[in-house]
Amino acid sequence: MGQRQMEGNSIILRLEMRTTEVHFGDVAGAIAEAGGDIVAIDVISASRESSTRDLTVAMTDAADNRRIVEAVTELPGVTVINVSDRTFLLHLGGKIEVTPKTRISNREDLSRVYTPDVARVCHAIAEEPQKAYSLTIKRNTVAVVSDGSAVLGLGNIGPHAAMPVMEGKAMLFKQFAEVDAFPICLETQDTEEIIRTVKAIAPAFGGINLEDISSPRCFEIERRLNEELDIPVFHDDQHGTAVVLYASLISALKLVDKQIEDLKIVVCGIGAAGVACSRILLSAGARNVIGVDREGALVRTNLYDNPVWQQYAAMTNPNMETGSLQDVIAGADVFIGVSKGGVLKRSDVEKMAKDPIVFAMANPVPEIMPAEVEDLVAVMATGRSDYPNQINNVLCFPGMFRAVLDCRATEINEPMKLAAANAIASVISDEERNKFYIIPSVFNERIVSSIRKQVIQAAIATGVARRIPKEKDFE
Amino acid sequence: MGQRQMEGNSIILRLEMRTTEVHFGDVAGAIAEAGGDIVAIDVISASRESSTRDLTVAMTDAADNRRIVEAVTELPGVTVINVSDRTFLLHLGGKIEVTPKTRISNREDLSRVYTPDVARVCHAIAEEPQKAYSLTIKRNTVAVVSDGSAVLGLGNIGPHAAMPVMEGKAMLFKQFAEVDAFPICLETQDTEEIIRTVKAIAPAFGGINLEDISSPRCFEIERRLNEELDIPVFHDDQHGTAVVLYASLISALKLVDKQIEDLKIVVCGIGAAGVACSRILLSAGARNVIGVDREGALVRTNLYDNPVWQQYAAMTNPNMETGSLQDVIAGADVFIGVSKGGVLKRSDVEKMAKDPIVFAMANPVPEIMPAEVEDLVAVMATGRSDYPNQINNVLCFPGMFRAVLDCRATEINEPMKLAAANAIASVISDEERNKFYIIPSVFNERIVSSIRKQVIQAAIATGVARRIPKEKDFE
Repeated sequence: MGQRQMEGNSIILRLEMRTTEVHFGDVAGAIAEAGGDIVAIDVISASRESSTRDLTVAMTDAADNRRIVEAVTELPGVTVINVSDRTFLLHLGGKIEVTPKTRISNREDLSRVYTPDVARVCHAIAEEPQKAYSLTIKRNTVAVVSDGSAVLGLGNIGPHAAMPVMEGKAMLFKQFAEVDAFPICLETQDTEEIIRTVKAIAPAFGGINLEDISSPRCFEIERRLNEELDIPVFHDDQHGTAVVLYASLISALKLVDKQIEDLKIVVCGIGAAGVACSRILLSAGARNVIGVDREGALVRTNLYDNPVWQQYAAMTNPNMETGSLQDVIAGADVFIGVSKGGVLKRSDVEKMAKDPIVFAMANPVPEIMPAEVEDLVAVMATGRSDYPNQINNVLCFPGMFRAVLDCRATEINEPMKLAAANAIASVISDEERNKFYIIPSVFNERIVSSIRKQVIQAAIATGVARRIPKEKDFE
Repeated sequence: MGQRQMEGNSIILRLEMRTTEVHFGDVAGAIAEAGGDIVAIDVISASRESSTRDLTVAMTDAADNRRIVEAVTELPGVTVINVSDRTFLLHLGGKIEVTPKTRISNREDLSRVYTPDVARVCHAIAEEPQKAYSLTIKRNTVAVVSDGSAVLGLGNIGPHAAMPVMEGKAMLFKQFAEVDAFPICLETQDTEEIIRTVKAIAPAFGGINLEDISSPRCFEIERRLNEELDIPVFHDDQHGTAVVLYASLISALKLVDKQIEDLKIVVCGIGAAGVACSRILLSAGARNVIGVDREGALVRTNLYDNPVWQQYAAMTNPNMETGSLQDVIAGADVFIGVSKGGVLKRSDVEKMAKDPIVFAMANPVPEIMPAEVEDLVAVMATGRSDYPNQINNVLCFPGMFRAVLDCRATEINEPMKLAAANAIASVISDEERNKFYIIPSVFNERIVSSIRKQVIQAAIATGVARRIPKEKDFE
């Protein structure tokens, strides 16, 4: 494993120690001297001549890592068999498994879940295809589909390398919302091929979560799949981000006592997430949204090579403001950054309207660090977990899919996204809300049920629910 | 639900009983009179006015089913809310789930299995793609792929209706061999489209189990996928059947003391399974295999519209025997039926060589019923679980995929199939073996480890293993 993998705040060393040459005390001493703290010992094997143990070593500094390994390697009688960190150990063999819901204990069980008796269930579905929702995993299962073209901050790393993200997502789906999700990582980045493949594998699934597919292909892929499939398709990088961003804004506006209709909102970075954030704000009633990218503010009178920008310009910037971010930020109520680290300056924030709201979501480095403008902003949020108000997609997707599966929605429309944002914002009461707490933690247990209820109501109201759950919330 | 679904040896009735109008004793009496036996009662809800209960009712005869429902329906104060049988109840919501291997309890866990720390794992795989085998589910996961074109005896019922079989298969994979399997049911029956789709989704998987794809497309699909993917592809209907058939023959030959080289073998039904059974026998040393289908014995001098038959004729029937099944069965040592019920007659078996072996695998009705020729045959096997010697694919696929995943095989070649057959046959000792016990039960716990060991050894010997498990069996 390369050095990159050794980072993290603890490592696990597998050491073989020959009993005649070295005492464990010597090893512990060497590790302590190099800056490590042994927090766990697991004996793997022991004989008269040698013992093999896994030592979990905590460190204050990732740089200590190499020093510790070197110190141990230099000891006589010690062989370093392996060095792992906890993140890598958690990934060994993958993070999810496929498990039967019932055990097959005897021939009778076998004949019910498999041949010959399963044939009656197959027959029932063949006669009435909608029964797939009651008699197969379809009603609770989502495909997490990626082509590995835009994974986290890593870019186009391909389908194999994208798997750990998609498996992690499947874990979150199950833990937070009891949704079964399976990763489908595609060995193609061709738009038509992706569309064909997802359509071909759709029968097992009740929904499709698109993930980490680069712009502009993601727009066409999502649009076409939504048109051509009868199950909901949701590109999380766009709409998950947009829903949580809007939830944050709902909450922030209550603090500054402004209305969305009156805001001047500058969106910086008009890729997949920037477009989706702008769209949801317009759906929610925003009138003055201005997009800024490398060429400055997008204006409908300009001609752009990028067709996405052209469309974007047509629906935004009603006052046709031109110039750089530094120009259009003047008088803005809200800054929304989905671009890259450091593009917003303190002097820009100084030019914003009274009670500025800054959502700097670039990862890992935000458009501006909170410390730089703490005294200026009314509310600030980032994509990071080490600052207050983390705008994190995990707040949205588990509850969103729980909702659409439970009401067998055919699509996820704009009112359903707005409902999800309202549901997230409503988890925080007016009493709790303050500038450092506008959005709940991903571990807040009320989120999923709140989203589920409001999204199902929106699905029913807009006529896309094929099933109305038997609960008083939906009467 | 239609009448077909009501078969089975027990049903569950959900009844609403209005307390002022009916006593539970009346209901129990009516059910008993109609031939049912209440074996379990679950109270679903109860109030002063009414109670809703699930009654599990055992029956001796499926025909009683309707009588029971009618008798209960006629009672005053009773509403039949639902009638289900146990097989259908087992299928509600599907039979498998996707579960995390570890729980995410806090933000630190979240950052390890998801962003930001998962990025280091993605990065490691991007740098060295083979690490997908250690850091993702690939090393333990198989796709069970079907287009629903030839499902059990039901024929072309499509992908949704095929799901229960594929889910059942996933259950068996996990329970018998700890393999994670996920059903991929395809909304296409186009050969090229199927090949493209399976290639596109391959990154998550360490192997592909093709299932219930009709002939002749199954041959091309399997051949091409084997050529174009670096993970093993196994069409179970062909090779699973062939492996278990050959295992049965190994065992049967020990009883009659014959050698495979000396046999005259008649294979009846030259579809996917018939071709695969014939191939494995030829690989194992058989010289005189004669295929019979609707046009009689296949001979290389004839011209067939079906290219599969033409190829088949070229590699079989060295003595160019012609005529019907009734003609070529004369003097045969072994009959292998993968065709349809009733095609073999007692008079045919009378014409076979001394100690005839009859494997009548058509389902649900074998080519000849065991009772008809009990006195004539040396050994007989069928595909049914209610006779001795069931030739069942479940004996093969879990162990086969356990083996290829553990040694990261690039393919499943002929020596590996022969090894699997030998491994299955070897589970029964010479002392145990008799005409009614030539092949182990699917619940025999030694099967998977026996197949695993011998298949991995064959994979290593033929150079297709990319990893040699650290066990003394493979030194």
